[in-house]
Amino acid sequence: MGKKAVILLSGGLDSTTMLAIAKSQGFDVYVISFRYGQRHTFELIAAKTVADFLGVKKHLILDVDLGSIGGSALTDDIDVPKGRDESQMASNIPITYVPARNTIFLSLALGWAEVLGARDIFIGANVVDYSGYPDCRPGFISAFEKMANLGTKAGVEGDGFTIHAPLSQMTKAEIIRKGIELGVDYSLTLSCYDPTENGGACGECDSCLLRKKGFEEAGIADPTVYR
Amino acid sequence: MGKKAVILLSGGLDSTTMLAIAKSQGFDVYVISFRYGQRHTFELIAAKTVADFLGVKKHLILDVDLGSIGGSALTDDIDVPKGRDESQMASNIPITYVPARNTIFLSLALGWAEVLGARDIFIGANVVDYSGYPDCRPGFISAFEKMANLGTKAGVEGDGFTIHAPLSQMTKAEIIRKGIELGVDYSLTLSCYDPTENGGACGECDSCLLRKKGFEEAGIADPTVYR
Repeated sequence: MGKKAVILLSGGLDSTTMLAIAKSQGFDVYVISFRYGQRHTFELIAAKTVADFLGVKKHLILDVDLGSIGGSALTDDIDVPKGRDESQMASNIPITYVPARNTIFLSLALGWAEVLGARDIFIGANVVDYSGYPDCRPGFISAFEKMANLGTKAGVEGDGFTIHAPLSQMTKAEIIRKGIELGVDYSLTLSCYDPTENGGACGECDSCLLRKKGFEEAGIADPTVYR
Repeated sequence: MGKKAVILLSGGLDSTTMLAIAKSQGFDVYVISFRYGQRHTFELIAAKTVADFLGVKKHLILDVDLGSIGGSALTDDIDVPKGRDESQMASNIPITYVPARNTIFLSLALGWAEVLGARDIFIGANVVDYSGYPDCRPGFISAFEKMANLGTKAGVEGDGFTIHAPLSQMTKAEIIRKGIELGVDYSLTLSCYDPTENGGACGECDSCLLRKKGFEEAGIADPTVYR
């Protein structure tokens, strides 16, 4: 039996690759996804499919009502921006930013990890392709780790938690190549912020555009179904 | 119009007093409570009653399913300890510890504060009477504040958040005296971990015992209805 790790899984390209990486490192993987009031729940279907495909010890889908807080195009009835170029994406924090989302998701993962006896938590934060989200940056990740080790029983009495962000410094193309090497089937993943009623990707939101570009740069055929 | 503040309110003695303190400091108070899978929800009724009594701009009750994580006598079907003396309470982290609870609750308060435009968050953490919970200690609170200011749009672009724990160094008797001075009606509050079906306090859990002792030491009649 390996060491246990808790993996934040959205069902997108990044977190799916990270799950494969954690497995390749010998961890027994416990996967957590969130029903948080997002506009669409196709990502939860993708997360379930991916977890089944790669094989996990347990997949927990936890309810947390971020919709009652609001403040984001991902939870509110605000249009998701489409067709932006990279300078527009990089210029400021986008409307798809969900206030304190990674803090909230990591906190819930931390609680579950403590109960499971896991001391390793994986988050698919990445700063190379897309630096607009403050809660993806390395300084935030290390500050969270420090706080976690002061605020939990396991942190103060035991070995302490490690927050892993293995994708942090990888380009999208590098992430895709790594995933292909580890046997990830990207046709099962969903990155789109604004899919069709059938779960097809829009091809125009920031997340779709970065994904497309990543496959191009990696020289790998994009298996995504665009609407 | 005053500055906005978000207040974590459980409906117990400490957080109710803290709400009165925040109001006395001139803040426009936005109160947040959690339906988190606790054994009983009388505390939410108490929180609502207290919020109405003291007067708040808004009271948000947010759903977060900590029951699916488990690991605590407050969410699982584990007996709440009764009749312990103070040395027993202080000797280790109790089974009523909910893994990462204050981290999770502060994270959700942080998200709401960011949306509201509030930069001040109040938590009723206290280390004098009861030091068993790691996520009540000052080191944790300041680590959370630092992390919050790295992981949010408001933190990195604006003035930053302040996490207030005004009760941190106060004894229960001091808290009660302060609350009485500010007009708190403690008969509306509920501290018990294990109330009766009618919401009466058990009088024997750690929380009841500390509350009783606080009223005795303050020389103030205890208005609590014990079962």
